[in-house]
Amino acid sequence: MQDSMTKLKAMLGRIADLNGAAAVLEWDQETYMPPGGTEARAFQIGTLRELGHEFFIRDSVGELLDQLSPEDFGPGSSDAALLRVTRRDYDRARKIPARLVADMARATAFAKDGWKKARDTNTYAHFAPHLQTVIDLNVEKAEAVGYDACVYDALLDEYEPGMKTATVAEVFANLRDELVPFVREVVGRPQPDTSVLHRFFADDRQWDFGLSVIRDFGYDFEHGRQDRSAHPFTTTFALSDVRITTRVDEHFLNPALFGTLHEAGHGMYEQGIATALDRTPLASGTSLGMHESQSRLWENLVGRSLPFWEHYYPSLQRTFPEALGDTTLDAFYRATNAVAPSLIRVEADEVTYNLHIMLRFELEQALVDRTLSVDDLPTAWNEKTEAYFGLRPASDTEGVLQDIHWSLGALGYFPTYALGNLMSAQFFNSAVDTVPDLENQIARGEFGPLLAWLRENVHKYGRMKTATEILESATGRGLEAESWVGYVREKFGALYGL
Amino acid sequence: MQDSMTKLKAMLGRIADLNGAAAVLEWDQETYMPPGGTEARAFQIGTLRELGHEFFIRDSVGELLDQLSPEDFGPGSSDAALLRVTRRDYDRARKIPARLVADMARATAFAKDGWKKARDTNTYAHFAPHLQTVIDLNVEKAEAVGYDACVYDALLDEYEPGMKTATVAEVFANLRDELVPFVREVVGRPQPDTSVLHRFFADDRQWDFGLSVIRDFGYDFEHGRQDRSAHPFTTTFALSDVRITTRVDEHFLNPALFGTLHEAGHGMYEQGIATALDRTPLASGTSLGMHESQSRLWENLVGRSLPFWEHYYPSLQRTFPEALGDTTLDAFYRATNAVAPSLIRVEADEVTYNLHIMLRFELEQALVDRTLSVDDLPTAWNEKTEAYFGLRPASDTEGVLQDIHWSLGALGYFPTYALGNLMSAQFFNSAVDTVPDLENQIARGEFGPLLAWLRENVHKYGRMKTATEILESATGRGLEAESWVGYVREKFGALYGL
Repeated sequence: MQDSMTKLKAMLGRIADLNGAAAVLEWDQETYMPPGGTEARAFQIGTLRELGHEFFIRDSVGELLDQLSPEDFGPGSSDAALLRVTRRDYDRARKIPARLVADMARATAFAKDGWKKARDTNTYAHFAPHLQTVIDLNVEKAEAVGYDACVYDALLDEYEPGMKTATVAEVFANLRDELVPFVREVVGRPQPDTSVLHRFFADDRQWDFGLSVIRDFGYDFEHGRQDRSAHPFTTTFALSDVRITTRVDEHFLNPALFGTLHEAGHGMYEQGIATALDRTPLASGTSLGMHESQSRLWENLVGRSLPFWEHYYPSLQRTFPEALGDTTLDAFYRATNAVAPSLIRVEADEVTYNLHIMLRFELEQALVDRTLSVDDLPTAWNEKTEAYFGLRPASDTEGVLQDIHWSLGALGYFPTYALGNLMSAQFFNSAVDTVPDLENQIARGEFGPLLAWLRENVHKYGRMKTATEILESATGRGLEAESWVGYVREKFGALYGL
Repeated sequence: MQDSMTKLKAMLGRIADLNGAAAVLEWDQETYMPPGGTEARAFQIGTLRELGHEFFIRDSVGELLDQLSPEDFGPGSSDAALLRVTRRDYDRARKIPARLVADMARATAFAKDGWKKARDTNTYAHFAPHLQTVIDLNVEKAEAVGYDACVYDALLDEYEPGMKTATVAEVFANLRDELVPFVREVVGRPQPDTSVLHRFFADDRQWDFGLSVIRDFGYDFEHGRQDRSAHPFTTTFALSDVRITTRVDEHFLNPALFGTLHEAGHGMYEQGIATALDRTPLASGTSLGMHESQSRLWENLVGRSLPFWEHYYPSLQRTFPEALGDTTLDAFYRATNAVAPSLIRVEADEVTYNLHIMLRFELEQALVDRTLSVDDLPTAWNEKTEAYFGLRPASDTEGVLQDIHWSLGALGYFPTYALGNLMSAQFFNSAVDTVPDLENQIARGEFGPLLAWLRENVHKYGRMKTATEILESATGRGLEAESWVGYVREKFGALYGL
């Protein structure tokens, strides 16, 4: 038995090396690669990912899994979890035919071009046939891997293992009932002046300020670094090398500042996974929702809070005396927390963001259920936008064509953003209950106890526990909307005098 | 037949992807990797290199090679060359037992530590047993792959395919007869003042100046870039992505300046290989000597020439007005070309450098022939140093322990440095004969015709031709010392008034 386990780990280790190497090549492509390197890089990444997949779906992996049972290892042990998670991944990977993987790769290569063309010309028709193919292939994948209640369950499960569509739908329904009227109230109140955020902020100073904050957070530069890329991301080469990227806009403070805090949240999650899990399938965040809960916690519940700015605003003012010298802490805090319904998800504020997700969740379900046709999608999108935001997109580019996800073949991904938001408030509340003096610590720029609480209750497990298991053991409750709604009502109620 | 060729190329392409990926990971390790990433990176690079080796020595590769013959493809065709070179690499790789590869990896891991300890404590005894193992394993490798005349032939052949020890020995003998008395003459003359090179030169200005020169050379930034590393190097991820590194010393102009020109020479060689050869074993420089001929040509024959500085010195002065404002072109040119015997190879000037190589070549041969024992090596080193340079190392650290190569397992590597120097002069002479007005072009900062000549006569072939074949077709002669000796006599004779 021990011998089989050793063999299995050696095989999985090799696969982890291939995937880690692919991540390095992808990171380099987004950060430093010269323009002419693209084609060769596609071959290299393709070979690494293909080998990783080939090695994983080998019969020999299945045979070793058959010889080993999680029950033979202590309950709660990492070896038992390793067998459980590897079995799940293996069965899922074996159920998806190689032909389908190839079809999806081809389809998304074309879909990305179709999507770009559709956006550039504001012509949905260029994207529609590709979207149809992506939906068809996703439904085919769902049928191949199987599901309990509905097709969407199988898609959601890829990004949020164990989560059910019905659970999400129920939680989102509660959320909508609270959120839509609350947003309406906020909109009726006077808006803060946000122009201060669009003054001139020198690139290198933004860069250094962001680094200084995440150093305080506890992002570990011995085992990570930050580079520049067009779209910010976090990537893990190994648990000992977790890197983040950011982008800087000299005429808008938010992207680099809050982007850095956000990615650092993702990065600290992976840096906090128990090192013993490295080079195994357990060595990553347990779900996209859980990941987003960590990035959002540091970006929003910490980074957009009043205690945080009580500590950091004076040094931000010293960093940008021309831009901020005439702006009070209160005015700055209000500007960074302005709430306004908008058409574009990635530009949305903390409060209205989840509405964008709920809209996509509902439309995605209708598309895979075939109760909504691809042709009718733009109209459905615009109608829902009007219902949720009281706004109507002037064009499909600022409507149904705004997100890249579907063109990448990702269906079932969007809900995880909102799950992350909800969980972030659940975790933060529990941390406040457990860590004495937490908000005063934040007001002093001390984050060690908060990070330690997250490490102990969330990070260290990697994929040993599901998101729901982590949530329940850390907060005593499953996924719910109340914590986040309560947080939003309190914070933005105060800000908007409601 | 065509089918077998397609299959073979697919296999070789995959191996090229793995090796290219490993090169990316190695580059990242030297440039950007956070300190904590070392151990995981070793696993990843190990897995990639191991898989590349495993895939290459498979029986199926041999079977395809057996089905295909270079004669079936046009003479001079890239397919014929591919079969020839792959057969050579394959036979060599298959002859070396896996056990020997593993022994060498283990031995060098220890040898590197032993070498560092020996240097740090100036105690040769810490390195001696490791060196003995490295020699024994190299001899074993030579016996495994076979050789014509002597053991050293097999070692040299790894770095300089087709080159024979006897040829090198004869050429070096001619060189020594000319060089030793010439150096003695130079030493008798007044020395230029080199202190100007040690003034303050701001890092970013050195960086930008170097980049501007190699942009003029024709180093292609669409397919390459320069980063910083402790030791400069050139690395090829694919023919479309060839990167260089440099290091900057603010109190010494030479490392960044001449290092950048040197690495750009290596880089332009690989960038100039015919793109059709990419993802095959032909897609690299044909030998280390040939590679060094290209780096030295740009660094020395171009970059330390009077025409070059006639063009660039005014702009260098404008870049560093405080440091260079009071120094004339003539004084600067003399400073950058000062000749003085010294103990340390990597600090040696253009003229005495080859003496350092000849010394190592003679000692290496004696070590593998067992006519010199490891215990007697330090004494032999010091005696030869005295004979060649008229100097005696005060310690083994500035003597026999100065180079890292042996601790890495590399025996037979050193001669390629001198072969590169000799070939660089042969190529440059031919280019001067063929390209009208070449030296005036250099004096105008125009390098297009020189680079085009090198591309057409050297670069484009990759490994399709051996170094000797390229040398003979480009210059009409095999390896010889006369061109380089003539160049040195003329240039340094003028500089030193001989």
